[in-house]
Amino acid sequence: MTPPALHKNQLFVGTFVHSKSLSQLHYLHDASVAVDKSGKIVAIEPQCGHQEKAAELLYPKLGWDAADVEVRTCKEGQFFFPGFIDTHIHAPQYPNAGIFGNSTLLDWLDKYTFPMEASLAALPRARRVYSQVVRRTLSHGTTAAAYYATIDVAATNLLADLCLAAGQRAFVGRVCMDRLAPDYYVDEGGPDAVLSRTRETITHMRQIDPAGDIVAPILTPRFAPACTPETMAKLGDLARAEDLRVQTHISENVGEMALVREHFPDAANYASVYDKFGLLTPRTVLAHAVHLTESEAALIKQRGAKVAHCPCSNSCLTSGECPVRWLLDRGVDVGLGTDVSGGYSSSVLEAARLACLVSRHLAMPYNAQGDAARAPSDIKDKERERAKLSIEEALHLATRGGATVLGLEHKVGGFEVGMEWDAQLIGLHMVDEGNNGVVDVENSSGGGVIEAGADEGNVDIFGWETWDERIAKWVYNGDDRNTKLVWVKGRLVHQRSSSTFSS
Amino acid sequence: MTPPALHKNQLFVGTFVHSKSLSQLHYLHDASVAVDKSGKIVAIEPQCGHQEKAAELLYPKLGWDAADVEVRTCKEGQFFFPGFIDTHIHAPQYPNAGIFGNSTLLDWLDKYTFPMEASLAALPRARRVYSQVVRRTLSHGTTAAAYYATIDVAATNLLADLCLAAGQRAFVGRVCMDRLAPDYYVDEGGPDAVLSRTRETITHMRQIDPAGDIVAPILTPRFAPACTPETMAKLGDLARAEDLRVQTHISENVGEMALVREHFPDAANYASVYDKFGLLTPRTVLAHAVHLTESEAALIKQRGAKVAHCPCSNSCLTSGECPVRWLLDRGVDVGLGTDVSGGYSSSVLEAARLACLVSRHLAMPYNAQGDAARAPSDIKDKERERAKLSIEEALHLATRGGATVLGLEHKVGGFEVGMEWDAQLIGLHMVDEGNNGVVDVENSSGGGVIEAGADEGNVDIFGWETWDERIAKWVYNGDDRNTKLVWVKGRLVHQRSSSTFSS
Repeated sequence: MTPPALHKNQLFVGTFVHSKSLSQLHYLHDASVAVDKSGKIVAIEPQCGHQEKAAELLYPKLGWDAADVEVRTCKEGQFFFPGFIDTHIHAPQYPNAGIFGNSTLLDWLDKYTFPMEASLAALPRARRVYSQVVRRTLSHGTTAAAYYATIDVAATNLLADLCLAAGQRAFVGRVCMDRLAPDYYVDEGGPDAVLSRTRETITHMRQIDPAGDIVAPILTPRFAPACTPETMAKLGDLARAEDLRVQTHISENVGEMALVREHFPDAANYASVYDKFGLLTPRTVLAHAVHLTESEAALIKQRGAKVAHCPCSNSCLTSGECPVRWLLDRGVDVGLGTDVSGGYSSSVLEAARLACLVSRHLAMPYNAQGDAARAPSDIKDKERERAKLSIEEALHLATRGGATVLGLEHKVGGFEVGMEWDAQLIGLHMVDEGNNGVVDVENSSGGGVIEAGADEGNVDIFGWETWDERIAKWVYNGDDRNTKLVWVKGRLVHQRSSSTFSS
Repeated sequence: MTPPALHKNQLFVGTFVHSKSLSQLHYLHDASVAVDKSGKIVAIEPQCGHQEKAAELLYPKLGWDAADVEVRTCKEGQFFFPGFIDTHIHAPQYPNAGIFGNSTLLDWLDKYTFPMEASLAALPRARRVYSQVVRRTLSHGTTAAAYYATIDVAATNLLADLCLAAGQRAFVGRVCMDRLAPDYYVDEGGPDAVLSRTRETITHMRQIDPAGDIVAPILTPRFAPACTPETMAKLGDLARAEDLRVQTHISENVGEMALVREHFPDAANYASVYDKFGLLTPRTVLAHAVHLTESEAALIKQRGAKVAHCPCSNSCLTSGECPVRWLLDRGVDVGLGTDVSGGYSSSVLEAARLACLVSRHLAMPYNAQGDAARAPSDIKDKERERAKLSIEEALHLATRGGATVLGLEHKVGGFEVGMEWDAQLIGLHMVDEGNNGVVDVENSSGGGVIEAGADEGNVDIFGWETWDERIAKWVYNGDDRNTKLVWVKGRLVHQRSSSTFSS
């Protein structure tokens, strides 16, 4: 079931925008990017904004025959951007997106999350939900995701099947939880049984995608208190023996942190619990990291483990404000996670937007009312100011940052020769210049009905904006309507039905 | 140019959801609402979910002839909801939505805002921008808005013309700013000239809509430091003499608050500056109110002035977290404002969503890193927990709360006999139950392209959700695609081109 090679070479022509460094975007206008049949970028030609010029300049070098090339050219105002990377999403929680009431993590798990996850042991239901998750995340431009599935083997394997069929890069993890779980939703039979179920899913994924190019397994202890020490130790052994990826949660919520202290009283801190069991590795994704201490950040940096920042979830569940700048300052790699359904949105673009907003809450001076503890005198103003994430930084986390977190930094996240073509075509709405767009004062007085075009989205470009401003408008008001086409490894995997293209 | 009467009576059939109290939504299923030719709700019949039954039960009572009634029936999953009320939006700043960088209020005004506002003295540009603002806000279900325009008389009048033509209720204010403004954008000629220009706009609005049903003027001193005391005094006199509405800003940002202290050294506080000039009245809308003191809140309550809470803007400009619960506890009326372009979004639904999130930031326990000042011991946990706004509360602020803030509480904001039909039809995406929606594992392996429907929006309803859960999903993932139709005073003013209806 591994995807076949592409039928044709591909040439993409137009504007390409991607992250150059944490604080800088790089704009390539009137450029051409050549992608071969394996989905690899084989040439990037900066001053080559026409198909004819590309054919003249590039095809001879590449040994391409024009008849064997599919050409895609941006329309006015469109640009190519790397696919987004969701470093933390719970596929089975998707139907609960937006449903969390006033709960916080531990009561949210009991009330909303465990019942929903348990219900997906029914495969028709799992198929319906997981199909929609994959559709939606692709529509948001998510070309790679680290998925939590459930404890159920068959449903976990089904999620992997669906990701492969849809062509979305996915690390899929069967959830391990043999403690502190409700009776109706617990990994039963002891550590060996837990491991054996996880091995079944690993075997399945290696069968359907032997190269692991699109779908690959990831070990998924739910979070430290939910696994017995024996299970944690066995998972650590397995991770080491087979160099497997690991994903789990850390320091999301103060109640959860108290549970860790209770169940691992000898551990110096939360991070050292994972470390003790060999689960804190360069291949480990730690979701949240809201309340880490200095020594935990140092340990995580030392082990090379990564952080999935999930701003939407942290706000929804009142978990706290993750100090992303503080993590970056300490050399910890950070990507973005939607954390559906702790987070309501399956869009990484919205995660980027909320990362910017949450960072501003960290930077806020104080609240006058009853919060004297945050009075200005107490605060290092400059340090607070630095907490703010720029749009460029948020987009870096959403692409290259996420790629690093998932160990894909040499493969995806930017437009470079040798990388694979995981990309989205972004289109913004250009407001009419003439009188088409204006409300007719003379003739429609009180009688006209304004019709909205179906697919234009909410980003209005008037034409005078700089490119930086267009990107800012996209980040703050963009949605899936602006993601016209999505590719993974060169393959077109999503398109909006009304999207059109010059070619 | 006042809107003509409607051609027909109207009967709306289906599910109606509206705010009953601050903390409760009211659901009316299988109901009928009758709206007469003046746009007024004349009957609400709870157990009357079919056109035939309504005709039998209601028409005789109302003296209606079936041939003279237009009937609109919800489709499965759709519901009617009151129109949203935006209590604070700067129309001329719309092209800057999303463009604010890392600025805070005062540098944001200089860098982005004043140049944009000044540029709209060119009427073709103003027409283009204001048309788009009205279109977009209507598409988001905003049936009434309190608009800041600019200092320019002609452009301000144009905005009023456009709102009337489009049928959107609008309070439109020419901005008064004769101090602390840049040379290129200042209200010149002294207080009398300032007042005279404002009177020109008032006269215009009274000419185009004598009853003030759709469009009416509102006095708009930008914010205290930007007006000379003489101008403030004259505006206060005018407000009293003609019982005019007033809108301005208060305690948004600590730099702005310092300016107030500097320019009004004798004033006890920010609120008392407005009070001294007769500008703190039951008809006054105060935007932001992030950093009020107890005595200011007491004064505002005493005068009956209202607050426009603008969570998006407060986060974007790092202004602070408005303590909405604290205001409500003190009896201050609160509505929601988008505050475009301090806020990036012109959607009141997004403002409601962000009001929920920002309230959770107020409720957050603490941040471990370098923020010992917020350690748990210092914090009244219960008080913090109360800061959280529920979905019901946010929707109350977005409808009835906003109506009260704009003095429209007896006219709009809910579905009651005697109120006017300012409403939106909301439709959510029903996920296919069969195999239509699922990804085909067998046949699409690596080769299929998933197409997204054009207009379905991001809210996925699987069918098992309660109504409360559907509303939660709408608030958190909804957008203008879910707002299928919008009415003001009984008149259809917006429709999505693909929206359909059973009738």
